[in-house]
Amino acid sequence: MKNYLFFDEVVSEKEIFSKVHQESGDIGFYSLPEQDISDILNFARTIQKSTIVVIGIGGSSLGAEAVYSFLNPKYHYPKRLLFLDTTDPIALSNTIQDIDISDALFLAISKSGTTIETISVLKYLDAKIEFDANSLVVITDKDSPLEEFGKSRNLHIFNIPQNVGGRFSVLSVVGLLPLALVGVDIAKLLQGAKEIKDNFFIHNDKNHIIPKALFYSKFAEKYSSNVLFSYSELFRDFNSWFVQLWAESLGKKRGDERVGLTPIGLIGPKDQHSFLQLIMEGPLDKSVTFLKILDFGIDTTIPNHSLPHLEKLDILNGRKFSELINLQADSTIEALRKIGVPVDVIEIDRVDEVEIGKLIYYYELLTAVTAIELDINCYNQPGVELGKQILKSKLAKS
Amino acid sequence: MKNYLFFDEVVSEKEIFSKVHQESGDIGFYSLPEQDISDILNFARTIQKSTIVVIGIGGSSLGAEAVYSFLNPKYHYPKRLLFLDTTDPIALSNTIQDIDISDALFLAISKSGTTIETISVLKYLDAKIEFDANSLVVITDKDSPLEEFGKSRNLHIFNIPQNVGGRFSVLSVVGLLPLALVGVDIAKLLQGAKEIKDNFFIHNDKNHIIPKALFYSKFAEKYSSNVLFSYSELFRDFNSWFVQLWAESLGKKRGDERVGLTPIGLIGPKDQHSFLQLIMEGPLDKSVTFLKILDFGIDTTIPNHSLPHLEKLDILNGRKFSELINLQADSTIEALRKIGVPVDVIEIDRVDEVEIGKLIYYYELLTAVTAIELDINCYNQPGVELGKQILKSKLAKS
Repeated sequence: MKNYLFFDEVVSEKEIFSKVHQESGDIGFYSLPEQDISDILNFARTIQKSTIVVIGIGGSSLGAEAVYSFLNPKYHYPKRLLFLDTTDPIALSNTIQDIDISDALFLAISKSGTTIETISVLKYLDAKIEFDANSLVVITDKDSPLEEFGKSRNLHIFNIPQNVGGRFSVLSVVGLLPLALVGVDIAKLLQGAKEIKDNFFIHNDKNHIIPKALFYSKFAEKYSSNVLFSYSELFRDFNSWFVQLWAESLGKKRGDERVGLTPIGLIGPKDQHSFLQLIMEGPLDKSVTFLKILDFGIDTTIPNHSLPHLEKLDILNGRKFSELINLQADSTIEALRKIGVPVDVIEIDRVDEVEIGKLIYYYELLTAVTAIELDINCYNQPGVELGKQILKSKLAKS
Repeated sequence: MKNYLFFDEVVSEKEIFSKVHQESGDIGFYSLPEQDISDILNFARTIQKSTIVVIGIGGSSLGAEAVYSFLNPKYHYPKRLLFLDTTDPIALSNTIQDIDISDALFLAISKSGTTIETISVLKYLDAKIEFDANSLVVITDKDSPLEEFGKSRNLHIFNIPQNVGGRFSVLSVVGLLPLALVGVDIAKLLQGAKEIKDNFFIHNDKNHIIPKALFYSKFAEKYSSNVLFSYSELFRDFNSWFVQLWAESLGKKRGDERVGLTPIGLIGPKDQHSFLQLIMEGPLDKSVTFLKILDFGIDTTIPNHSLPHLEKLDILNGRKFSELINLQADSTIEALRKIGVPVDVIEIDRVDEVEIGKLIYYYELLTAVTAIELDINCYNQPGVELGKQILKSKLAKS
């Protein structure tokens, strides 16, 4: 994985490294690459079920979904991973009908243990299935009501490590257990994360993270939106994971002041036919990060085949599709740099666990460092409480 | 379908109605609700193939995809609709492997007839399949190179009506043919569109479109991002269609000035656990439209079933999931209104062709009226040309 910055306005690099170092002692996600995963692997070895179903939403599902849907289109794992992550009745009904209950293991994942969506679905299924240790596993904070429920049913329980927030939890048991259960090599995920961590903390190679974070924080008003333009369909759910991480970590009050950076996830080349016009001719309020895959592993070549009346497009002949998609990315990069949009590029070497592990840890670090620079708390989400209270009172009333 | 505005800053309604009326004589999408669809229906009746595959990208695919993925989870059409809308080698390979070629009808859709992505895939498949009138249909502008190619192979050709741009083309043959082929009642789609059109032009019920457009244009800098917060998984692809329509129509230069509004598509309740924190505590630069479904048709009830240690959540017992998701929307609406975010609500009565037809035409009208107010050209996309030129020179060179 490589990262190239093409920001025209250069920011001098300050010494925020020590602040990050200090924080890394208290905040849980920093030390996840070194965790002991033997419990997860041992448990996964005992499971024969061919469908794994996560009941969870937000930080409890987006991370595993991002990794699985990045890897599965290439590796075609023998087991399926499904997500019950909504209260939409049609979506719920279709996903549930698609599950052979006797051949499925459900994972109820909720940090607080009281997430409305998760408990609703759990109630619905429990009334049908009567969950036991064979069919349900619980992943939650120590002593949460969900853990107590799990104990009352003698379920297998995994606790989320202290000080690991939902949106930073993909490399904890929250993401690792469902991924291990379908066959993802989770040791390699952590190996990738560890490489980025060591580059940053030990080898003094900041992988551009500090200058990039400084740019985002210094120009938070000028470049209020940060686009992640990912050139592969594999990144669709990764984009959603990034949007949660960025929006929920960096949209915060600093005293009375509202600060925040707006994440936008795009997929190339599709969104060249959609959002790109706005970036090119609309207000210059967006930075753009391009995410490219150098070696897709699976590839096909456009044949030396002329179509009558379309001979002008014979310039495509003999190109691999991987070459074409990356040339499309490069052309968009060049066009945006010409008009002065702050651009940077992240290259992923190949589609595997190590590379996606790197990318995840890279973005977690980048988010944490940007929050330090913005002087906000990266790890809470007080803004969503009001809606929850209103919902509770509506439920109590009506 | 109903629309409620809760904008705190009231804008006086001006007389832009006559401008819209005038434009509607020249711009093609306005008159699509009245088109003759007998050719499309007659052709569709002759097709027995069980898989329909669109080869097209952007305006050539997003509209049909939005309608199909809104309706199919409820109606489960007997035929499949697939999209080859990328140059990603892994995604292409997986989709193509999923097609039984002998039982598939391909539709090559490109307005210009020279779209790089579409022609690449067409070349690749034609070298394998040797398309003929039995396997391929062409939808393109009159006299385009793709039409000429189609003639040389004696293919069935449908022309895109004049003055209908790609992102406004879902209610033309571009969207109607693939939808009719899988069994969507396209007459009802147009009936819904016609209702909105007549409400606007004849019945003088502007359905809030003019005040809403005035608000967006007047506060284009203050509220530079417009969020569509759709409370159902059914709207995932509709959100993408909206993002293209809004970004590509309204991100334009007005002389030397860059104007534009940034669309953001969210799905509820999922994104309550992601983006909502940023709207609640970040900069107040976003308006939010909530999109709700009143009657999902398919529904399930959370049972009267207590889980030990989770009895506090028995307030959910006996609720339908449709009730819960709409209460979640209402709670978020209330929370956002409390902090002064400009909010409006669109309610869809049910999941059917008429309602999605209304919604499409509503958004097309809203976009057109907003562009008139912003004094920009809604229907071109000059900003994407630079990237295309750079790509061509890269392809010619390397």
